[in-house]
Amino acid sequence: MRVFQIEMAARTELGEQLRTARTAKSLSQPALAAVTGIQQSEISRIESGAANPTVATISRLADARELKLSLTPQH
Amino acid sequence: MRVFQIEMAARTELGEQLRTARTAKSLSQPALAAVTGIQQSEISRIESGAANPTVATISRLADARELKLSLTPQH
Repeated sequence: MRVFQIEMAARTELGEQLRTARTAKSLSQPALAAVTGIQQSEISRIESGAANPTVATISRLADARELKLSLTPQH
Repeated sequence: MRVFQIEMAARTELGEQLRTARTAKSLSQPALAAVTGIQQSEISRIESGAANPTVATISRLADARELKLSLTPQH
């Protein structure tokens, strides 16, 4: 059970960080889709934690907001 | 071309961070495989940037080293 919780927490937290970064500049999902080439429906699933995206997909979304993927201490 | 560079940079950098975190405690790939349930060969491909893992897979490896995936500023 714990593995599932780790994975869901990671997907949910990254999704929220991506949504916050996108809305901070009033960027819509369709606009981000146009910039990244990732479908708006997939962006929606990623932001809600419903999708399990690859590092490549997340890095493209992050790059569009001048962010990058990193490993940081849990506490 | 740029998208490919973004993705490869993300895969390579995360792989190096995972390897550094693993070797910091002299943890071998087989030992990390036993802890996470992720095959040693896959850990090797992830650490070398050869694989394009999902958020779920990376979060399991990170959790084993008390780390988590985050979006951080590029500069």
